[in-house]
Amino acid sequence: MRGAVLHAPGEVRLEQRDDPRIVEPTDAIIRLSATCICGSDLWPYRGIEAIETPAPMGHEYVGIVEEVGGAVRTIKPGQFVVGSFWASDNTCEICRAGYQSSCIHRVLMGAIGTQAEYARIPLADGTLVATPDVPPPDLIPSLLAASDVLGTGWFAAVAAEVGPGKTVAVVGDGAVGLLGVLAATQLGAEHIIAMSRHQPRQQLAREFGATHIVGERGDEGVARIKDLTHGFGAHSVIEAVGTEESIMQAIRATRPGGHVGYVGVSHDVTLPGDELFFSLVHLHGGPAPVRLFLPQLIELIWNGEIDPGKVFDLTLPLDDVAEGYRAMDQRRAIKTLLAL
Amino acid sequence: MRGAVLHAPGEVRLEQRDDPRIVEPTDAIIRLSATCICGSDLWPYRGIEAIETPAPMGHEYVGIVEEVGGAVRTIKPGQFVVGSFWASDNTCEICRAGYQSSCIHRVLMGAIGTQAEYARIPLADGTLVATPDVPPPDLIPSLLAASDVLGTGWFAAVAAEVGPGKTVAVVGDGAVGLLGVLAATQLGAEHIIAMSRHQPRQQLAREFGATHIVGERGDEGVARIKDLTHGFGAHSVIEAVGTEESIMQAIRATRPGGHVGYVGVSHDVTLPGDELFFSLVHLHGGPAPVRLFLPQLIELIWNGEIDPGKVFDLTLPLDDVAEGYRAMDQRRAIKTLLAL
Repeated sequence: MRGAVLHAPGEVRLEQRDDPRIVEPTDAIIRLSATCICGSDLWPYRGIEAIETPAPMGHEYVGIVEEVGGAVRTIKPGQFVVGSFWASDNTCEICRAGYQSSCIHRVLMGAIGTQAEYARIPLADGTLVATPDVPPPDLIPSLLAASDVLGTGWFAAVAAEVGPGKTVAVVGDGAVGLLGVLAATQLGAEHIIAMSRHQPRQQLAREFGATHIVGERGDEGVARIKDLTHGFGAHSVIEAVGTEESIMQAIRATRPGGHVGYVGVSHDVTLPGDELFFSLVHLHGGPAPVRLFLPQLIELIWNGEIDPGKVFDLTLPLDDVAEGYRAMDQRRAIKTLLAL
Repeated sequence: MRGAVLHAPGEVRLEQRDDPRIVEPTDAIIRLSATCICGSDLWPYRGIEAIETPAPMGHEYVGIVEEVGGAVRTIKPGQFVVGSFWASDNTCEICRAGYQSSCIHRVLMGAIGTQAEYARIPLADGTLVATPDVPPPDLIPSLLAASDVLGTGWFAAVAAEVGPGKTVAVVGDGAVGLLGVLAATQLGAEHIIAMSRHQPRQQLAREFGATHIVGERGDEGVARIKDLTHGFGAHSVIEAVGTEESIMQAIRATRPGGHVGYVGVSHDVTLPGDELFFSLVHLHGGPAPVRLFLPQLIELIWNGEIDPGKVFDLTLPLDDVAEGYRAMDQRRAIKTLLAL
């Protein structure tokens, strides 16, 4: 099959990879209908995160089940399925508490690489959620978004305790931050402040429900959030970048007793204990347990209530994966869908 | 009046200070019935926290109202009152959300110094809670404990989302940690693991409801907590020390999705963003909004349901304040009550 492989920073190539096969009886093999490039794929692409190369790339996926292992009970060949970037059994004590991204049997899909024609999905019954039917093509981008960026933005909003009557600020205008805006809207937030200085992203934030846009960053951005919240700071702040500057901006923009939901993968971040202590904020985040939210998100998409697929502003054939990475790296695209 | 003053690290003296007087119309003057020495007083006493000297000391207090300013409406002379280490208006938006320790008008009582015969209490109506009557002497230690260490331990337990069916670990066997054990018991925890290597503190932890004692610290302590929780870690961890070692021990002892409630005042702590991210724990804490809990805590004490005053294992006259500090510094005493 064809699949994307990173050979060195900046060097992604589509090449022949071995067809996946059932390894464990709990596996399924899917034929991908679409896949995409994640903001987190840019960390190794930019050489900021060291990984062993050559590395198969990608961890977002939707597709048709081709084959299942002998122990798979609920997932059937022919179903259209959505899964998360962590394969999880969905039965252990940690999964049942809603933290499938720390499942005791979890498998990182990024190590398998779903920017490819086919993929092996471990723990298929726990990982995959089937849609009511094979979807029409126009729903595929949104279902694919549910696989990571929507589920991650949604978790950030839940972690930030977004709800009715609350003012929410969103740090980060990538796909996850933008879908954090969408999640905040769905969860009933009263005011949603998107922090962005890029006009097309501001526009999409407004379409997803942002009521205010703040272009300033760092201390100036914090001061603007304070201005908009009677000096208190936001009740809930979603952090979707992962740098020390962005997480400190999120903490400082939150009122005492408020909640920071952070999902940007931390890179070179150290947090000052004393500032955190006196801030009195709640801090929660990490790798999103997307699996927890998939049934709900699929239902919202299926019923046409949300359209998270709008974050894909570039669609390329899988063959053009290298251009997809370049466009995101250069911020020419918010998010690239790779069609199969 | 007589009051304790820190002149240099290790040098606390009882000396004559000016009698306090009403400064703002919202002030009250109280005659202290008892005061005490806090673990946090040891930071400047040990020279670890630099403060401007000479510094009046103390921020815990119970006593009889002597006089009130012209704008005080609910607090009356003759009442026995308990207050917190932050004076707060209890009416601003942050107070109403339950974060009186970040009241927009807050005043730090430590700057006033309550290890003294009298004290001025700013924002008296918002800060002080009167008991149903002047208490019998045997209730005074417990009411004094409510002023800080009980309220702080209680906040830590609430921040750690302690509740029925949960396993709670407590890092720190000072008065706050021990009263965190008491709070966890009151909040219905199923298992409470006190981390302590000191026999008298272990004993008190058991009296307050600890079901398990772990003497190991650091990685070994974490491993013991994992052993006791099927490898997952505790649902809720109370951190009541404030060092980097103790907070990392707390984070590592918490299961994914679990809650750390931290109330030890952070000193030279930096938290690694990546470890925090992948831990998937909730982190909440800071200076406790003791005022929020005072009515409930006073009721529990008044009805004889809890006896937090047991943390005072040394009672000295105020004149012997210097010995009180020495005893706590040398860990000969858990907590010193200064009688008036």
